[in-house]
Amino acid sequence: MIASTPQTPYYAVIFTSLRTEIEEKYQETAAEMVRLAELQPGYLGHESARESIGITVSYWKDLESIKNWKKQSDHLLAQKKGREKWYSAYKTRICLVERDYGFEL
Amino acid sequence: MIASTPQTPYYAVIFTSLRTEIEEKYQETAAEMVRLAELQPGYLGHESARESIGITVSYWKDLESIKNWKKQSDHLLAQKKGREKWYSAYKTRICLVERDYGFEL
Repeated sequence: MIASTPQTPYYAVIFTSLRTEIEEKYQETAAEMVRLAELQPGYLGHESARESIGITVSYWKDLESIKNWKKQSDHLLAQKKGREKWYSAYKTRICLVERDYGFEL
Repeated sequence: MIASTPQTPYYAVIFTSLRTEIEEKYQETAAEMVRLAELQPGYLGHESARESIGITVSYWKDLESIKNWKKQSDHLLAQKKGREKWYSAYKTRICLVERDYGFEL
């Protein structure tokens, strides 16, 4: 579940959000967006968790890959519905991952 | 709960983790680490959520601030206990936030 990413540098998109109470097609759209993102060139993986806020981090090869995913047509529609229905607030941060390290038992 | 961060550029540390079943002092140490991080020079905010994985993103002014927090003595002890007791795996990613944008109802 921790994304297996290549050697740095690569990019991360941190998407932090607050949900409204509207459930309408939220879960299925979220799952579909993961499925479609995985098909995008340059997609490297993602991690997601929600408690009082939701945090989804997706990893990408470069800025070009992120730009192409942002303007993918189904994703554009989901972004619009996100603002109209599912989210009361969100923030997106585009980040260059300069260094990483980990631990595993 | 979405961190209020200044204009880019700034830094993000994405800490993704898998927990063991050992609870011993985990919650209180996590709370204490938040309290201490907030006192560190260069700390800008943090966001956190856990479901099957935990994601904590902390935001920092620069690499120097991150380096100083990494070697803060109580934090070093918590990192050691993390590897010995609380986490079965984790990954830390040091990122330059190049751009951000958001939405609020």
